[in-house]
Amino acid sequence: MTDIDARLAELGLTLPDAPAPAANYVPYVQSGNMLFVSGQISQGPDGLMLGKLGADLDVEAGAKAAAACALSLLAQARAACGGDFSKLKRVVKLTGFVNSTPEFTDQPKVINGASDLLVAVLGDAGRHSRSAVSAAALPLGVAVEIEAIFELA
Amino acid sequence: MTDIDARLAELGLTLPDAPAPAANYVPYVQSGNMLFVSGQISQGPDGLMLGKLGADLDVEAGAKAAAACALSLLAQARAACGGDFSKLKRVVKLTGFVNSTPEFTDQPKVINGASDLLVAVLGDAGRHSRSAVSAAALPLGVAVEIEAIFELA
Amino acid sequence: MTDIDARLAELGLTLPDAPAPAANYVPYVQSGNMLFVSGQISQGPDGLMLGKLGADLDVEAGAKAAAACALSLLAQARAACGGDFSKLKRVVKLTGFVNSTPEFTDQPKVINGASDLLVAVLGDAGRHSRSAVSAAALPLGVAVEIEAIFELA
Repeated sequence: MTDIDARLAELGLTLPDAPAPAANYVPYVQSGNMLFVSGQISQGPDGLMLGKLGADLDVEAGAKAAAACALSLLAQARAACGGDFSKLKRVVKLTGFVNSTPEFTDQPKVINGASDLLVAVLGDAGRHSRSAVSAAALPLGVAVEIEAIFELA
Repeated sequence: MTDIDARLAELGLTLPDAPAPAANYVPYVQSGNMLFVSGQISQGPDGLMLGKLGADLDVEAGAKAAAACALSLLAQARAACGGDFSKLKRVVKLTGFVNSTPEFTDQPKVINGASDLLVAVLGDAGRHSRSAVSAAALPLGVAVEIEAIFELA
Repeated sequence: MTDIDARLAELGLTLPDAPAPAANYVPYVQSGNMLFVSGQISQGPDGLMLGKLGADLDVEAGAKAAAACALSLLAQARAACGGDFSKLKRVVKLTGFVNSTPEFTDQPKVINGASDLLVAVLGDAGRHSRSAVSAAALPLGVAVEIEAIFELA
């Protein structure tokens, strides 16, 4: 996995700066070779990606928000590896929370935005176990929040 | 734990085929001897088990839906063990999401449907740590989604 | 980390008895040196801490409820260590569920009540990765439920 930066470039993707938490916690913790990355909220170059699925946001916009979360997760993983993606073995688990109305039932299609990006960038090492559920609300009104567990080499 | 298949038979339980994910992720990932199983939605021989607790589903029906999730989790664990349950050491953790109204407060009684089944089948190896919370909505409108961490031998 | 009990006393904090689960699961499971603690609901010396953020509870009250969850998590960790906090290496991960209306967006400020307490008591060993999300409802109507992963020495 020394070519991850190359694949990101091929795909036209730029990792954001690894966002700093706003409170008394840290963006990731390594325990053994497991890396636990804090929930990343949907934000892109233009700021927070806000909205509620089933109300003011469609599945396509939700999937873009999920993809933005995946980029932030990768940025945190890269930081945890000291910038050297060759230390990243695989994605183990995603838990995706979708800000949605009680009637919305396409959480998986939204979180696919993150899953597809991770597999596009990391190949088989990007395939992960996953849960996708609704949250009644999310921090600051963002559309999606995703946390991850990675395995380091 | 070589008698799990026998206990399933004694209890009149049949594991479903390990359901395949509908998207770019996998049903489980093993990291070390930890097995992370993707969230399993409630479905039985008659199809998806739909509904919202506090609205159109009572606790007993919810607990049956949770038990169905537990059967799918066991099916995934068996698949991860190559069909050999003797490689399964124990259930470590369940996270149970209950599709409910904002007024419903019996999430634990619903998820007990899964906890009771796992202990009935696996004995002490089925005892697990657990969280039980509400989700505003769940994929496809199912009543329950449960993810699990198992420890393999 | 042999001075945790002393720091608790300095801070005027008393750990509750490690609450027993009400169902067929256990308060914690150790796998390797990872300790998975079941979701702890907000309760204090005066009983359950009930309410919904955005409706009948403000952020300050929510943060107190989160701090109470953190005390219960520490009580469970101490029990898992046989009462000897020197066996506790660090907090790895919190997942915080805030009982809130669909409009409430300050979940992080609520869960800070738990994060701040853990860092006050444990110092750097209390710094953790974290997700903070809303739940449409929580067991028994409590304001906050938090689960945790600890690393043991």
